[in-house]
Amino acid sequence: MSDQTQPPVDQLAAASLSDAVPKHDFSDRVPIRSILARPDGGSGLAGRRARVGGWVKTGRKQGSGSFAFLEVNDGSCPMNLQVIVDSAVADLGLLVPTGTCVALEGVLKVPPEGTKQKIELRVEEVVHVGPVDPAKYPLPKTKLTLEFLRDVVHLRPKTNTISAVARIRNALAYATHTFFQKHGFLYIHTPIITTSDCEGAGEMFQVTTLISEAERVEKELIKNPPPSEAEIEAAKLLVKEKGEVVAQLKSAKASKADITASVAVLTKAKENLSRLEERFKLKPGIPQKDGKIDYDHDFFARQAFLTVSGQLQVETYACAVSSVYTFGPTFRAENSHTSRHLAEFWMVEPEIAFADLKDDMNCAEAYVKFLCNWLLDNCLDDMDFMAKNFDKTCIDRLRTVASTPFERISYTEAVELLVEAVKGGKQFENKVEWGIDLASEHERYLTEVKFQKPVIVYNYPKGIKAFYMRLNDDSKTVAAMDVLVPKVGELIGGSQREERYEVIRDRILEMGLPLDPYEWYLDLRRYGTVKHCGFGLGFERMILFATGIDNIRDVIPFPRYPGRADL
Amino acid sequence: MSDQTQPPVDQLAAASLSDAVPKHDFSDRVPIRSILARPDGGSGLAGRRARVGGWVKTGRKQGSGSFAFLEVNDGSCPMNLQVIVDSAVADLGLLVPTGTCVALEGVLKVPPEGTKQKIELRVEEVVHVGPVDPAKYPLPKTKLTLEFLRDVVHLRPKTNTISAVARIRNALAYATHTFFQKHGFLYIHTPIITTSDCEGAGEMFQVTTLISEAERVEKELIKNPPPSEAEIEAAKLLVKEKGEVVAQLKSAKASKADITASVAVLTKAKENLSRLEERFKLKPGIPQKDGKIDYDHDFFARQAFLTVSGQLQVETYACAVSSVYTFGPTFRAENSHTSRHLAEFWMVEPEIAFADLKDDMNCAEAYVKFLCNWLLDNCLDDMDFMAKNFDKTCIDRLRTVASTPFERISYTEAVELLVEAVKGGKQFENKVEWGIDLASEHERYLTEVKFQKPVIVYNYPKGIKAFYMRLNDDSKTVAAMDVLVPKVGELIGGSQREERYEVIRDRILEMGLPLDPYEWYLDLRRYGTVKHCGFGLGFERMILFATGIDNIRDVIPFPRYPGRADL
Repeated sequence: MSDQTQPPVDQLAAASLSDAVPKHDFSDRVPIRSILARPDGGSGLAGRRARVGGWVKTGRKQGSGSFAFLEVNDGSCPMNLQVIVDSAVADLGLLVPTGTCVALEGVLKVPPEGTKQKIELRVEEVVHVGPVDPAKYPLPKTKLTLEFLRDVVHLRPKTNTISAVARIRNALAYATHTFFQKHGFLYIHTPIITTSDCEGAGEMFQVTTLISEAERVEKELIKNPPPSEAEIEAAKLLVKEKGEVVAQLKSAKASKADITASVAVLTKAKENLSRLEERFKLKPGIPQKDGKIDYDHDFFARQAFLTVSGQLQVETYACAVSSVYTFGPTFRAENSHTSRHLAEFWMVEPEIAFADLKDDMNCAEAYVKFLCNWLLDNCLDDMDFMAKNFDKTCIDRLRTVASTPFERISYTEAVELLVEAVKGGKQFENKVEWGIDLASEHERYLTEVKFQKPVIVYNYPKGIKAFYMRLNDDSKTVAAMDVLVPKVGELIGGSQREERYEVIRDRILEMGLPLDPYEWYLDLRRYGTVKHCGFGLGFERMILFATGIDNIRDVIPFPRYPGRADL
Repeated sequence: MSDQTQPPVDQLAAASLSDAVPKHDFSDRVPIRSILARPDGGSGLAGRRARVGGWVKTGRKQGSGSFAFLEVNDGSCPMNLQVIVDSAVADLGLLVPTGTCVALEGVLKVPPEGTKQKIELRVEEVVHVGPVDPAKYPLPKTKLTLEFLRDVVHLRPKTNTISAVARIRNALAYATHTFFQKHGFLYIHTPIITTSDCEGAGEMFQVTTLISEAERVEKELIKNPPPSEAEIEAAKLLVKEKGEVVAQLKSAKASKADITASVAVLTKAKENLSRLEERFKLKPGIPQKDGKIDYDHDFFARQAFLTVSGQLQVETYACAVSSVYTFGPTFRAENSHTSRHLAEFWMVEPEIAFADLKDDMNCAEAYVKFLCNWLLDNCLDDMDFMAKNFDKTCIDRLRTVASTPFERISYTEAVELLVEAVKGGKQFENKVEWGIDLASEHERYLTEVKFQKPVIVYNYPKGIKAFYMRLNDDSKTVAAMDVLVPKVGELIGGSQREERYEVIRDRILEMGLPLDPYEWYLDLRRYGTVKHCGFGLGFERMILFATGIDNIRDVIPFPRYPGRADL
């Protein structure tokens, strides 16, 4: 660290751009956002020195190669900074290829009249170049499909779309934390590896060390074969002999030293035997007991899975510290190849004590509205990009949802409305009948056609919902609710939880489930039970809703689905 | 939802306590924090009506059973609200057991002179009771050890210690997001399921559906046995016969209808054969190919693991959108039973583009200081509890770390200091020698004894560090750094990453690693490479550091370690 005593370059830059860069990010360049995302578009910074760093989106030589224009983007905002480099300053051929990394120092100037830019950088020094061979670069400047980009998941953040999605996703994540913290909720890290099943949530991935352990044993046995039965027998015989020697010496009242020595020999023989017996038991393959896999040998001494929901676990905290939420990855090992499902996705799950279904709906509505307003307040430039390139209605959709009260109808009313629609000529592929779950097309009809705004459907038939949802007084429905929104349909699913010990125990039995795995969950009702409720929001669904992007694989940095887990 | 038109109770409560409850949490009670965590201790609220809800910490009947005092806690703060219930209002015997859940409505009053409380609630209505049978309650009022509580992981949040840890953990998580957002970092969700190995980070858990799939096939084969070879042969014969029929009809120039009919019969026979052949291939057990497990049949069509670090993946974003961070669960399948290791734990990993090791150290120091200040500003009541019950120095430690510049010394200097210490009579169990990693005792000596403040050790010998760390000009050391703090030793490990394509390729080969799995990582250096750095902070270590709690199993809600994964 010979340069540790030199003044860091970022301080120089910050000094020259101090009003624009109140929050530096520990790098030695100023974020382009701090220049361009100002009300004046950056023009007020004319005359200032700045060091910027980023990647060339477009580069072209001009004036017979005497200078070059570069459009530079550093990911801090969707806008590119225009940069002018003179051929005296650098080898322009090295700078112009798309994807080239550059760190540049220069002076901000107002460009000539009639250009789009409000400010540009006249480069005086090229501090760094990370070159690109255009012949080999996997992301040529031509318009690339999102499908193509899924095959270069490690480079796709360099594209305008995926970087805009990253900024929107980041904004929604921080908005989520801000909303719940503001309302006094505690963020609880529920476990990823679980031995509980959130009943009915779906197929689970298994987490194990048995396979790698079996492979290790297999290799070890090849390198170092196990003892034969004859070797074991010989070792047993030796123990017997040495034992007899000890007995003889003792009965002959031999000297203490002789007895001690013979005991030591016996101990050694016994140790050798038990070592051999241990190795004799080593078998290739996954350990079995009674024809089944013996999970006593697995890492957690039992079968373990990846969580499908943190709800049941976070309830242990709601029933102790009141309002809580989880926000973490969840998993489904389902072989579904749709544009709406991932094997690994993120869920937001609040859980509220001393609250019922109405409170749950109030919270869900306030949260979704908060997210919409947050994007409008903090990501309008990225939303403009989305409106231009993917879904021209996406900004209006955010505004509508943020400002309109959500419609609230019971499941029974929803079915009536759908039956009416069918009578009026509307065709659905799936049957509409009280007692059957609403299909996606029904949900989309209610929110997109019938009400044209978010709809909360509540009080579902108990037969189609999980055991933990609170039984209503009609004994036919449970206090469940789904929030349906235009573009994606179901965004949120929640319920008031059954807090009555006898009722929930009966519901578990009624559904043919064993009580034993739920004893801990029943304890929450046995000891100081509390009225409580909660919901889950599929985080990627919210991003689809916000951006108008169609495929869920494009709104998570590293999508996992059947046959695919790159990196 | 018959009550939907009634004014929600929480609005009534908020109205009567409006200045104290600016941020309600969607429940129908006011958080006790909003009463007691005021500068006046709540006395200014005397005369207000309030509905509170929580769990009884201590209850005792007084005045020959004519009234009862309850200490009620709702998790919103460490303080209990004192509550007085008259026997005319409720069955006091039901209310006083520790652990009972109560929702109570009443009027806040200033208690008589000479009592500890600044405010208490005179109850007028008991809205809810969630009773406890004290004979069965697993958490009696006696002081329980943290070790005992690990066996009742679903109830332990009801204790003062675990709920205080939950609030501190929550505060540190939100502080983490706030710090990085403030500095312009984007939060990136790196994958949990991974097919990459962050070299050298440790043993990995395997994620698979092969075992459950094998079990499914096994059951299916018992219910519905596979075809015999004779059945297959018969089906083959049938296909042959039907094929001949088609051929004969064609050569005999039979009618189109006859040929079509015979082709249909042939097609059916072929389908039947392929169905039988498919089922014939079904074998119990995990699918094998060439004596090895055939991962083509696993969910992702390849071997998959739980991540040990998000670093390599988050670099793909740093090399595209500059400053980023991950904050998520990571995993180690190591059979370690220490008080410092978990199989599942959370890590914070920022990655900064256009930045070197010095910037990395600046960021790490600023982040740790920010966390300390945040706790002092937001969690002083919980920190007081920790100081009183676990570590009387913990608040001073936060203050020292927040206000003192971290010492920065090279690894070489660190070794010199340790050698000096040994010469001066200090005894270490582990050898001190240039080229060997520092042991925990050495780290503790440097931070706790020698400097008595956080120490950053940088420029480690390349032989003991990972391939991705940037080679220094001396060709002997790499630009790595560890932050050591009193109480826990290593809290942060980081480095500048090797951005030079040839150098990193050579380092991979030098370490005997295959290039192929790292081709995507090399692409980041091939196309627009950028100077960058980053670090990882073990989130639970930070909580141990802050609270003074000794065992890492007590600072995560659901600890996972060998043999144990409750819930």
